[in-house]
Amino acid sequence: MNVIRKPTTGDVTTGPLPASKKIFVEGERPGVAVPMREIAVHESAMEAPTIVYDTTGPYTDPAAHIDIEAGLPRIREQWIEARGDTEIYKGRDIKPEDNGNVDDAHLVPEFPVANAPRRAVEGPNGEKRAVTQIAYARQGIITPEMEFIAIRENCLRERLPEEYRKLAEDAESFGAEIPEVVTPEFVRDEVARGRAIIPANITHPETEPMIIGRNFLVKINANIGNSAVTSSVAEEVDKMVWAIRWGGDTVMDLSTGRNIHNIREWIIRNSPVPIGTVPIYQALEKVDRAEDLTWEIYRDTLIEQCEQGVDYFTIHAGIRLKHIHLTAERVTGIVSRGGSIIAQWCLAHHKESFLYDNFEEICDIMAAYDVSFSLGDGFRPGSGADANDAAQFAELETLGELTQVAWEKDCQVMIEGPGHVPMHKIKYNMDKQLKECGEAPFYTLGPLVTDIAPGYDHITSGIGAAMIGWFGTAMLCYVTPKEHLGLPDRNDVKEGVITYKIAAHAADLAKGHPGAAARDDALSRARFEFRWEDQFNLGLDPDRARDFHDQTLPKEAHKTAHFCSMCGPKFCAMEITNLVRDYAKDGMEEMSEKFKEEGGALYKDKYRDQQAAAGGGDD
Amino acid sequence: MNVIRKPTTGDVTTGPLPASKKIFVEGERPGVAVPMREIAVHESAMEAPTIVYDTTGPYTDPAAHIDIEAGLPRIREQWIEARGDTEIYKGRDIKPEDNGNVDDAHLVPEFPVANAPRRAVEGPNGEKRAVTQIAYARQGIITPEMEFIAIRENCLRERLPEEYRKLAEDAESFGAEIPEVVTPEFVRDEVARGRAIIPANITHPETEPMIIGRNFLVKINANIGNSAVTSSVAEEVDKMVWAIRWGGDTVMDLSTGRNIHNIREWIIRNSPVPIGTVPIYQALEKVDRAEDLTWEIYRDTLIEQCEQGVDYFTIHAGIRLKHIHLTAERVTGIVSRGGSIIAQWCLAHHKESFLYDNFEEICDIMAAYDVSFSLGDGFRPGSGADANDAAQFAELETLGELTQVAWEKDCQVMIEGPGHVPMHKIKYNMDKQLKECGEAPFYTLGPLVTDIAPGYDHITSGIGAAMIGWFGTAMLCYVTPKEHLGLPDRNDVKEGVITYKIAAHAADLAKGHPGAAARDDALSRARFEFRWEDQFNLGLDPDRARDFHDQTLPKEAHKTAHFCSMCGPKFCAMEITNLVRDYAKDGMEEMSEKFKEEGGALYKDKYRDQQAAAGGGDD
Repeated sequence: MNVIRKPTTGDVTTGPLPASKKIFVEGERPGVAVPMREIAVHESAMEAPTIVYDTTGPYTDPAAHIDIEAGLPRIREQWIEARGDTEIYKGRDIKPEDNGNVDDAHLVPEFPVANAPRRAVEGPNGEKRAVTQIAYARQGIITPEMEFIAIRENCLRERLPEEYRKLAEDAESFGAEIPEVVTPEFVRDEVARGRAIIPANITHPETEPMIIGRNFLVKINANIGNSAVTSSVAEEVDKMVWAIRWGGDTVMDLSTGRNIHNIREWIIRNSPVPIGTVPIYQALEKVDRAEDLTWEIYRDTLIEQCEQGVDYFTIHAGIRLKHIHLTAERVTGIVSRGGSIIAQWCLAHHKESFLYDNFEEICDIMAAYDVSFSLGDGFRPGSGADANDAAQFAELETLGELTQVAWEKDCQVMIEGPGHVPMHKIKYNMDKQLKECGEAPFYTLGPLVTDIAPGYDHITSGIGAAMIGWFGTAMLCYVTPKEHLGLPDRNDVKEGVITYKIAAHAADLAKGHPGAAARDDALSRARFEFRWEDQFNLGLDPDRARDFHDQTLPKEAHKTAHFCSMCGPKFCAMEITNLVRDYAKDGMEEMSEKFKEEGGALYKDKYRDQQAAAGGGDD
Repeated sequence: MNVIRKPTTGDVTTGPLPASKKIFVEGERPGVAVPMREIAVHESAMEAPTIVYDTTGPYTDPAAHIDIEAGLPRIREQWIEARGDTEIYKGRDIKPEDNGNVDDAHLVPEFPVANAPRRAVEGPNGEKRAVTQIAYARQGIITPEMEFIAIRENCLRERLPEEYRKLAEDAESFGAEIPEVVTPEFVRDEVARGRAIIPANITHPETEPMIIGRNFLVKINANIGNSAVTSSVAEEVDKMVWAIRWGGDTVMDLSTGRNIHNIREWIIRNSPVPIGTVPIYQALEKVDRAEDLTWEIYRDTLIEQCEQGVDYFTIHAGIRLKHIHLTAERVTGIVSRGGSIIAQWCLAHHKESFLYDNFEEICDIMAAYDVSFSLGDGFRPGSGADANDAAQFAELETLGELTQVAWEKDCQVMIEGPGHVPMHKIKYNMDKQLKECGEAPFYTLGPLVTDIAPGYDHITSGIGAAMIGWFGTAMLCYVTPKEHLGLPDRNDVKEGVITYKIAAHAADLAKGHPGAAARDDALSRARFEFRWEDQFNLGLDPDRARDFHDQTLPKEAHKTAHFCSMCGPKFCAMEITNLVRDYAKDGMEEMSEKFKEEGGALYKDKYRDQQAAAGGGDD
């Protein structure tokens, strides 16, 4: 008997965020309707709502019918179909080892709706064909995905006051070439040049297209996944929905336990964001030991995951036999899971890995489904002590070579980066990546800027993430408070996502991204004008902001109070500024007289009134 | 009847941190015994314990008798006495308005032991005398405080392996002149030059001397304090003890409600770290309106606080009447409490503030008690939009002028800084401060690098703090998750302190501070060798690290397991590296053969054994 409960719609959080409404901006191409989140502010503000980038999918749309057992609408299906270069086919059969040979009692239920995979049809003479966004871009084709992304990246910035629509003049973008307005043609050009990728497997038509590249908004990834030790399928689906609710742009399923296949199917069918995986994890579950892995098993696993609709694969093909010994003297050796599996294999067989040896065939497979490469950094440093060392950079140079190969094959590529790097070594990392990898997007984990704070590594890494995002990293892989200690639960996922939204947004601001400061300023105005509700709602986490406020000043009346718990009612810094404005306007001397006549700033009186309104004051 | 409970020793947390022992390193001068924290590691590590800087005072010393109602031992009393330039005298009488004219029922009990203030005796001809550390330093005197600090800053680095004792070669200190070994003479010289301060009121002899300057370890300050709206005296004393337990180097009491005087006395008498205040807050409590403030009331408040033993005062003397209008067009005007009070006063009277006008007399008062200046930034930006603007920099230039005046008077000075600053504007801030203020130590609040995350401003500001600390800020004022929303509770204080310890330490690492990386590396080795207990204990928050680990793998046996919950037992990245080391040592080819003969890495077998040891595995 199967004892594992099927996930149900009740397992995931739905409904809009406070004061938020989902809007859709239509493009010229059929079916292009880009979701955005409109945050309303109080009418006293007399300003337009703030529009923000929306990763949440239909889950926050009250008009959408959510059914976890049916999966999301397949919004890209028509676009893919219309290109006429793919076919639906019967995929490989699911084998017991795909789910780790788990016994029936522990088998996760299959996703209820069978999903037929889609792949590129061969060319007229039997040649392989790439149905990738980069292939179309190089042919000069602007896909609906590209138009969708252009609209999405702009976030209706044409509605903003003029000063926001421009690149911030005093910013520093370190050589990024951010346009004032993102056009579909700009998206095409960046993808064609390999400076950006659109992870969008043709068998994952549920995705709302998004782009990863340093001339676009900085993105963040959230990792989820069970392990041999813990967690369930409903939990993992919920983590995905929860991660995107708070701003996750992509989600990686890093499951390593049993039921990998079935859990992944539930996640992909319900995910509006690209899903990434590390196929070697699943391949290892199919054998006893790392050295028992073969190209055939790995290849079969790749195809298994391509057929499910995974959008990008971490592939540690950059590990060369000749470089492994460079890790021997490290403080923390090899800490990448995938990297260590491959290193172990290479050592056991004393030859180059099947990933490196078969890289071109891997490219052909991925091109047939449009799965993007995330070239893994198996030698990423696991401690500040090992940052920027010979092993790390030898691999990075190899990744640069592989990028060229993948580009030859019309594959989309991003490059994974560290890890643990003290602040003074971060910039060098970024610069070297750009140079070695031809400006392919960088996708970094953190980096953690110190190793002394287990339990707080979302923060140690958030610092490094903000900096490397500023320097040019296109996507930041989150780190949760549980890093190094345990598996993240729901709260950890949220904490990690929001920390990384902060890092990514701080990077956008520093790069001078047009429109990025608009949300900051809207929130600052709300703060300054004591529009408490607006301040909560414009923030990344309205629930927490409100809760924190209410812990000190719980009464409803306090949310309209013109003071806060820091200063208290007797004097208030922000109120006084309003006075300054009057002075500046009316002339200093004259106002000084007027002010004295009127009895000055009336905080004490105001205090009494407000306390009365709040139902009697405390002391 | 007095309904407010007296704080008792039971209100505060005592006892050592896990695996930690307090040690004392003696100096040459009598009574110099510098506390440090020694963190033991498992004997299997075969390495010396890690020594870390210890801010916790006697509270973590099992040998100390803690009695909150008696206060701490007065370790500096003999030193101060021996200098022969001060006298104990009867201070001013405590007036009802010192506690905000609170009625008896709400009056906080007085601290049980009366504290007689101490001040400089006048010179032979009735001249004012400075009994400040800078005055001694300029006379070439190395005080016991300076020797204490030299020992404290070194943290026994002579016991470290040689590579740690040096400045990190690849680091970037942006012009700091950090010595390889801190000598008492170096401390004296830095203080004499005004590049560092030792906040140490002679009426606060309970302090363990510490130094703030960019050629020393980066320090952090924790703010506590009640407001008109909430909190109690026991809570505030506990917050102080709690803040230093986690690493607060100084504590500011920002109380704005009633009972300010009595609460402060409890805090100071029990504080081994310097206490800072903003005297204008209390002065305002003594009048109805900001414009009713007078120099006499303010001066009396200064003396009141000098006599209690406050170690540094935030004084917003840099606000000039002619600059106030520069804030009028800001998004968030004036957000500093003190700044806005002074601005309001200046506008109401249409003249320069009594702080600016009486600055020299303020210097004389502070020199007689050795209270350090923390020159306040009343025009600090309250939003990224206002960062680095004309108002902020006009004030900073004034602060530079005042620094010269204070130095003339043999006063110690640090300069407060922002606030809210996007990443690309942080460095300019630091450079300008160094230039305008003659390298007087910079003491910054954050800065927050974005405004969109109320509820997470410890993180938005921790990013900026790490960066500005690296660039040269000497002390970082923490921000808690409650910033902008409410008053921090105990948990918030801890979260803020630890976030800022991360920022300060990350800055030390990036500056190449000798010895800074030793703790990171000790922890990384523990992590790599699966010494779980050591990993917890070497971290900033052993309790949380242990708790997080146990949420996923609660069983005791798992703490000795050679795997963790991320990879699970089947494969483990870190274990595999040990194999790589063997290969590198024994020659790659030979080992490859041997490995295959032995059957490869035995994770599966190990898994079974360990699950058995752990009392039966999960699935």
